[in-house]
Amino acid sequence: MATTVATTRAAGAPPRTNWEYLVTLRIEVPDRTGMLGQVTSAIGEAGGNIGPIDIVERKRNTIIRDITVALENMGAADALVDAVLAVPGVKVLQVMDPITKVHDGGKIEVAVRTPVLSESDLMAVYTPGVAHVCQDIHGNQSRVWEMTGKGSTIAIITDGSAVLGLGNIGPEAGLPVMEGKSLLLKELSGVNAWPLCLATQDPDEIIQVGKAVAPGFGAIMLEDISAPRCFYIEQQLDKLLDIPVFHDDQHGTAVVVLAGLLNALKVVDKRIQDLKVVVMGLGAAGIACARILLGAGVGQVVGVGRPGIVWDSLKDRADSSEAIYEYKAMNQARHGTLEDAMRGADVFIGVSGPRVIQPSHVQSMARDPIVFALANPEPEIRPEEAMAAGAKVCATGRSDAPNQINNMLCFPGLFRGALAVRATTVTHEMKAAAAEAIASAVTPNELAKGRVIPRPMNRAVVRRVAKAVAQAAIESGVARCKATNL
Amino acid sequence: MATTVATTRAAGAPPRTNWEYLVTLRIEVPDRTGMLGQVTSAIGEAGGNIGPIDIVERKRNTIIRDITVALENMGAADALVDAVLAVPGVKVLQVMDPITKVHDGGKIEVAVRTPVLSESDLMAVYTPGVAHVCQDIHGNQSRVWEMTGKGSTIAIITDGSAVLGLGNIGPEAGLPVMEGKSLLLKELSGVNAWPLCLATQDPDEIIQVGKAVAPGFGAIMLEDISAPRCFYIEQQLDKLLDIPVFHDDQHGTAVVVLAGLLNALKVVDKRIQDLKVVVMGLGAAGIACARILLGAGVGQVVGVGRPGIVWDSLKDRADSSEAIYEYKAMNQARHGTLEDAMRGADVFIGVSGPRVIQPSHVQSMARDPIVFALANPEPEIRPEEAMAAGAKVCATGRSDAPNQINNMLCFPGLFRGALAVRATTVTHEMKAAAAEAIASAVTPNELAKGRVIPRPMNRAVVRRVAKAVAQAAIESGVARCKATNL
Repeated sequence: MATTVATTRAAGAPPRTNWEYLVTLRIEVPDRTGMLGQVTSAIGEAGGNIGPIDIVERKRNTIIRDITVALENMGAADALVDAVLAVPGVKVLQVMDPITKVHDGGKIEVAVRTPVLSESDLMAVYTPGVAHVCQDIHGNQSRVWEMTGKGSTIAIITDGSAVLGLGNIGPEAGLPVMEGKSLLLKELSGVNAWPLCLATQDPDEIIQVGKAVAPGFGAIMLEDISAPRCFYIEQQLDKLLDIPVFHDDQHGTAVVVLAGLLNALKVVDKRIQDLKVVVMGLGAAGIACARILLGAGVGQVVGVGRPGIVWDSLKDRADSSEAIYEYKAMNQARHGTLEDAMRGADVFIGVSGPRVIQPSHVQSMARDPIVFALANPEPEIRPEEAMAAGAKVCATGRSDAPNQINNMLCFPGLFRGALAVRATTVTHEMKAAAAEAIASAVTPNELAKGRVIPRPMNRAVVRRVAKAVAQAAIESGVARCKATNL
Repeated sequence: MATTVATTRAAGAPPRTNWEYLVTLRIEVPDRTGMLGQVTSAIGEAGGNIGPIDIVERKRNTIIRDITVALENMGAADALVDAVLAVPGVKVLQVMDPITKVHDGGKIEVAVRTPVLSESDLMAVYTPGVAHVCQDIHGNQSRVWEMTGKGSTIAIITDGSAVLGLGNIGPEAGLPVMEGKSLLLKELSGVNAWPLCLATQDPDEIIQVGKAVAPGFGAIMLEDISAPRCFYIEQQLDKLLDIPVFHDDQHGTAVVVLAGLLNALKVVDKRIQDLKVVVMGLGAAGIACARILLGAGVGQVVGVGRPGIVWDSLKDRADSSEAIYEYKAMNQARHGTLEDAMRGADVFIGVSGPRVIQPSHVQSMARDPIVFALANPEPEIRPEEAMAAGAKVCATGRSDAPNQINNMLCFPGLFRGALAVRATTVTHEMKAAAAEAIASAVTPNELAKGRVIPRPMNRAVVRRVAKAVAQAAIESGVARCKATNL
């Protein structure tokens, strides 16, 4: 992950400077006039350029501050710490890089919607007043959607078995990602999401936990659970619960892939029903992409694993889950190699591993190939190589290349829309509507081979997706009420 | 619960007026000049006195507003609604009392500690930057306490089986209470608490859920789970987990009872080791009170149920949990009636039901009786009756009488203190320290028979309890680190 750190350091977490190396010193200094001046002088003499200075905590006789410093090179950090320690009375509590700093202590917290300033406030929000509300819900259970946070709140459930590209790192190490999802949901869509990182990887135990916690949540987002367990868990929970259960790694990716494909077809002027699409990768995202594409009317989908077309790829695999069998069944092509699959294909969608296809594969595709190489951080083929081999539209999962397939474009709006109508499940129609809404956020003027997908962090996309998903939920008959507050 | 509603209406949730009857109309009006004037005139003509007016939502052509109106009597509400509906184009969406209003949509939400304003912020808090933090924790699991919200976050777990005095109303109807606890924890102690209201009442399933969700939380507060299941659930979870598990209904009450008793002893000038204490009630709170009092050095504790002293009370009971057996075992008195138990007792602690003791019982106690009659809303004996029968110090669970035993005085500070040192469990010493800290918040000057307990909503008590609990955790050897941020 050395690359990752270097990238983010260069890209600059807040605070930003043009310098390459940032470090944040958490120091404890005596609460006396002139102390900060001595510290900042020492930093300057050590070659550090001072950025923001924050007060972290005020103690009886000391102050704890965070000072962010830009350095010429990372080797200068030790000298910097020595220089600060040389100031009498100063302690260096921590040396952090700016990434560490934005995660320090967690990225989310609870906020109070109803301030309690007095004992009479207390009597309304707590006992005895709350008893009135409890009885209201006890008498009519659907009132829980109005009188509590259920209607705006989802649980993010993971077992830490397939976190980012890092693999099975467990629930504790997965928590920073889940807090990040929660943060994005709140910032982009106003949905309250609380992470539940589970100390079990047993599918039936995960299902039991999801079922048990459901009363307080309006939906469940499953996250970073490895295949094939993720299929069974999602399917069972969706069957057991009357709220949406949505495995983001499957459907979030599939929705954004479909969105990108819809726009790419405008660029190459092809019709969806005429397409032959190769989906490479037999994991959660691959199967979900195959499903959503067939649902959207793609003529032919060919699933491919490393050893070849899905029928052959799967013959020696032990994880014969229902979803894998379904994937086999929906493949029109049954036998052959990757080469066989790619020959004459209109679209390649890779959700597999780094550098698994070659320029020659792209050259063998039909006219104006569309190549979505989504393995992260290293795609199945670099977009510049694919373009040189004749690809017309390329997309990747990377933020530093055109057409980033990022499921952030889907999940905030999808959950906002599903909650707005108190949906009981997520239907294919809702996912398709989300994909169309994302695609439509790229205006005809903007549309280009390097712009088939909107940028992430686009609140207009979130609103568009939320409205489309709510409408589709109503039309598919899974809405409990009319859309409010969209 | 008619009383409750009347009480809280009179006590006045925000907004406050001197009028007795408040009602909030949620109306949708065309977004045109003069509309609000017409509505407010109509309200005035219908005899309503207008309080705060809030904008709830702005739609394309309309605005949704909440208007709180004070009325002379509740009968005027219908006429008020008719008058508002008579204004052309105005819709009345909802008529709410102010209690309903403070709970509407829930009392807590998620807040973002790290704003994400740009794509470079995104790269730091989410991918790729977050991978760095995940790997940090994966390499050293104790870093989860620093790099996530775990260290400031607890789960509030209930099954809705014993909510307030309302009984087994289920997880949905229990949620408003749990949100209230979360709100109080945040407001008073800064602790982030997320409610998990479980759709199971099977003790082993509850234990499994508690165990599964533990990685993301620094402690678990069990709440409103009925006895005797609560004993087994707390004991097993505490054994399985390396974070504190604290059943508030048991220990919160017990801690505040001990605090009140410590101060009451100063008023009547008795020593704790000389006391004979009658504890009436065989539920969660009764057993916890007996335990904490014996642990604090009380000479003799006599447990009593409706049929008499605990040994006799229990002989026909089916729920022979370990805790109930322990309660039997720790009783010095074995057989007899309530009268036998009360004769010569120094202290009566009732955690049972309404009006179960008589003035004659108080008259039979030793000199200067101390009577804590904590059944809610109707105590075992009214404090004025007990005082008339010779009681020297009375306490109840009610906010409208002196000496309110409210576990709000305990749990916010206790969890803050336990989290500050990353405690692995809650020891008897931590509970005793909390009790002493609460007692010490009543200064010698303030101390009086009507002031043995501080008022709730007292942030000084929270700080005092947190420090004492953290210190006691360190001394009992269950702290993972020195106290920070107290």
